[in-house]
Amino acid sequence: MELDPEALSPPDRYKFLIGCIVPRPIALVSSVSPEGRLNVAPFSFFNGISARPMSLLFCPSNKADGSEKDTLRNAAPREEGGVGEFVVNIVSRGLARRMAACAEPLEYGASEFAASGLTPVPSAVVTPPRVGESPVSFECRTVRVLRLAPGVPGGGNVIIGQVVRIWTRPGLTDERYRTDPGLLDAIGRLGGLGYCTTRDRFEMPMGLEALNHPEAES
Amino acid sequence: MELDPEALSPPDRYKFLIGCIVPRPIALVSSVSPEGRLNVAPFSFFNGISARPMSLLFCPSNKADGSEKDTLRNAAPREEGGVGEFVVNIVSRGLARRMAACAEPLEYGASEFAASGLTPVPSAVVTPPRVGESPVSFECRTVRVLRLAPGVPGGGNVIIGQVVRIWTRPGLTDERYRTDPGLLDAIGRLGGLGYCTTRDRFEMPMGLEALNHPEAES
Repeated sequence: MELDPEALSPPDRYKFLIGCIVPRPIALVSSVSPEGRLNVAPFSFFNGISARPMSLLFCPSNKADGSEKDTLRNAAPREEGGVGEFVVNIVSRGLARRMAACAEPLEYGASEFAASGLTPVPSAVVTPPRVGESPVSFECRTVRVLRLAPGVPGGGNVIIGQVVRIWTRPGLTDERYRTDPGLLDAIGRLGGLGYCTTRDRFEMPMGLEALNHPEAES
Repeated sequence: MELDPEALSPPDRYKFLIGCIVPRPIALVSSVSPEGRLNVAPFSFFNGISARPMSLLFCPSNKADGSEKDTLRNAAPREEGGVGEFVVNIVSRGLARRMAACAEPLEYGASEFAASGLTPVPSAVVTPPRVGESPVSFECRTVRVLRLAPGVPGGGNVIIGQVVRIWTRPGLTDERYRTDPGLLDAIGRLGGLGYCTTRDRFEMPMGLEALNHPEAES
């Protein structure tokens, strides 16, 4: 079945994207305004980029009135009126409800930290605090912001950050920095109001030997 | 526990990123060289961007010798020597082994389609074929390529594509374009050789009402 995206309404395009690009990792992003106002919000258009430089990105779309979300305004470079820094906090299963609570649109000046019960803890290198309850946090400096449709409601933006400091719970990785997925217990985002856990796992080699791997394709 | 990324080797930084930013969606990207050579390769630094424009991105890092992967060279804009188009094919559980097979480094001129047993099917709008077995394919035009560390081994790149055509199996979405996650049966990438399914799911409202949601945080 063939679909022309231009023939779909923007909300339908959005539903299709979030229903088919799954499972998505979740970044609980903490940021601060130049005036010192704290913000925490979840984003699932989020991923790593590379180890050189150690970098990641997330994509906060414009609000319904076409204006930019607080997280984008705060993370934007200083020359664009922001602070140029943010922290990506990883979300384990036990933080699911408090992460989802941070998506609440609050009145100006109210803090998602207080409303959700999450704890702001000072970062080592950047101004915005990290989320104390997160198993892993990445302190980031904003390298670049791409605005694909400035002023357009739901318009796309890409924020690229370089990781300048990492926080992790002792024991979460081994001495070779390999993470235990069971201990991390991350959740992923699906379409609608859906989430998945990372508890149903399997392993497979990369390359042609995968074709003969005993792991059943059930 | 606090880590300075600069104190970690690039392979250790990579392992940390792929172990902690999980679960990642998988793009099986089909592309074609200006000479018509087909390529299919999986990427998990991949996600949607927005519905306006309907766009997505993926991040193929440089090869060990600092050169660019075939997928990046093919998807690059025409003025940079590429074709300026690519197709993102979604990976369901039943395609896991064939997707992993496409990560095999093949000799020049050999096709991952033939080696993996996947079927190239002509696209509607773009030159590269889609993967016939995929439940969903996004035909894309390259909007932009960002090179964060040109020539550096493992250096990061971001390819942004605008979706110009969608292929989907009838019945996969309802009349409001909401996807059935059980029918899609997508898999996600974890660290190392690990994967997860999207079979262990739960739902939760967004906003403060999530705090009182009966869904247990087990």
